[in-house]
Amino acid sequence: MRVSEVGEFGLIARVAARLGAPAPPAGPGDDAAVVPTPSGYVIATTDLLVEGRHFRFDWSSPYDVGRKAAAQSLADVAAMGAVPTALLVGLACPPSTPVELAEGLADGLRDECAEVGAVVVGGDTVSATEVCLAVTALGDPRGAAPLTRSGARPGESVVLAGTVGRSAAGLELLLAGVREGPLVDAHRRPTPPYGAGPVLARAGATALLDVSDGLLADLGHVAAASGVVLEVDADALRAAVPGVDVRHLLTGGEDHGLVGTLPAGVAPPSGVTVIGRVLAADPAAGGPGVRVVGGNVPPDLRGGPLRPPGLPGPTAAAPGGWDHFRAP
Amino acid sequence: MRVSEVGEFGLIARVAARLGAPAPPAGPGDDAAVVPTPSGYVIATTDLLVEGRHFRFDWSSPYDVGRKAAAQSLADVAAMGAVPTALLVGLACPPSTPVELAEGLADGLRDECAEVGAVVVGGDTVSATEVCLAVTALGDPRGAAPLTRSGARPGESVVLAGTVGRSAAGLELLLAGVREGPLVDAHRRPTPPYGAGPVLARAGATALLDVSDGLLADLGHVAAASGVVLEVDADALRAAVPGVDVRHLLTGGEDHGLVGTLPAGVAPPSGVTVIGRVLAADPAAGGPGVRVVGGNVPPDLRGGPLRPPGLPGPTAAAPGGWDHFRAP
Repeated sequence: MRVSEVGEFGLIARVAARLGAPAPPAGPGDDAAVVPTPSGYVIATTDLLVEGRHFRFDWSSPYDVGRKAAAQSLADVAAMGAVPTALLVGLACPPSTPVELAEGLADGLRDECAEVGAVVVGGDTVSATEVCLAVTALGDPRGAAPLTRSGARPGESVVLAGTVGRSAAGLELLLAGVREGPLVDAHRRPTPPYGAGPVLARAGATALLDVSDGLLADLGHVAAASGVVLEVDADALRAAVPGVDVRHLLTGGEDHGLVGTLPAGVAPPSGVTVIGRVLAADPAAGGPGVRVVGGNVPPDLRGGPLRPPGLPGPTAAAPGGWDHFRAP
Repeated sequence: MRVSEVGEFGLIARVAARLGAPAPPAGPGDDAAVVPTPSGYVIATTDLLVEGRHFRFDWSSPYDVGRKAAAQSLADVAAMGAVPTALLVGLACPPSTPVELAEGLADGLRDECAEVGAVVVGGDTVSATEVCLAVTALGDPRGAAPLTRSGARPGESVVLAGTVGRSAAGLELLLAGVREGPLVDAHRRPTPPYGAGPVLARAGATALLDVSDGLLADLGHVAAASGVVLEVDADALRAAVPGVDVRHLLTGGEDHGLVGTLPAGVAPPSGVTVIGRVLAADPAAGGPGVRVVGGNVPPDLRGGPLRPPGLPGPTAAAPGGWDHFRAP
């Protein structure tokens, strides 16, 4: 059997099964790992970015790619409610690569880290036929419990910090030949709301993740892990992120906005918007899932129960979610 | 200018200069980074392994590649005097990759981690044209100060735990068509002396690193960072690692043996052998460097002062050291 036949989430499930389940609280599929230390724990996450798949140097400068690569991993740390502290970066590239390209990447990595007070502390360089970046981010939870995907409970509100869909809208413009403008910039260099992670942790958030695969797909993971139905109000979402088509809002990843759940009665902190609510999963109605209410939502984006319930992988509730090994 | 023109160490120096120097105690070029936490620090290191360059599936099973990939990073943690605790693994591979290959890699990673009580806590999978593994290891120094490359002082002894040269001898056999035997096994699956790292830290070692580029090359880094001359006794080295040609002993990497320095009067712990001594660097004689004494050492392996002194990069003292971007 080939990797393309089981898909990204099938592959992860198979590999994770052989590795044995990590100790709680976080497991495979969460934004980042929670590694115990003598006095608490450290948050750690690794991401790979491959030229031509995750970035294109004809669309983005090496500096922008460096910033985006750092942002992706730093946002994973923030999505656990932690403060990013350090980055390790592996760079695989052909020997013919211009030195200026590596220097531009380094500048971008450094400057994105500076946004959160983190530093690049180590790395590795090797020869390869294509440019590949391996970025590992570490973070400090500052004493807060890690925010996983399994804590959402009925009665809570679904909240968003930062944006969704702008990067995907920018990608569509780039594909159409547009090279400038705020949405194109949002694709080249996302601006995750890093500070909202620790703020939401202190405010009592029960689940949190960064939207990297698309809102419906990523909320599907929360619904599965928490055993609930997440209802998104498309009108509230449109108001929170104006100027973006509802399809991009619901299926676009890579803005690395943070989406989570807050207990009833907790006012959303500054910069955080309520975009929906958590409902009990009714087994008779198909169990856990994501559904979209509000005006002018195309039928294929209205969500539904997860199929099969609780399993990772493409689901009825997650159209457009990204699978690295399947065609979109 | 191309990466091939500045070489691996030139590239690292240029990138590190742009990133700004990490806070002491460890910097670029050390085995691993030292990341402060609220109550101490965590050790962290990233390595990339690319198919066809760092491993070949016609020579090694996916299981062996997984073990070797884990060993490389776990040894870096041990070389800081710390206990490895967790691994994060990024896997880039073509969609046509057999699922069994990924599963074999996972089994190998898991079993090598089990040797030291570490676990695979997270990772990432992406599509690429070639198989690339990005392995990040974290470690706990258990209260000991990190063992960097800059602490060697004149009068100390140079000590070795584990082996050197066996992996390189095995690679030579594989290139000659031999497919079985203990040296071939040593290349396929190195067995770093993980426990010796924390043991040497407690014994008062002043510098420690794992030999991944070759003994002369890696001792050259210690000599440069510590400003000393390291004298290796080829006869003591031969006695410590019998059955291996002196060229492989002095230039072969990838056994991930640990080499370090112990203060005068400190008896080497069990499993640790004295293979040389630390001398003051005489500026009139060329300054810091590595020299090899003892019988039957070819002239090109007798070492000498570092040229240019103290700078990273190929040196007169480090023949055969591996540069990922230059021809050997």
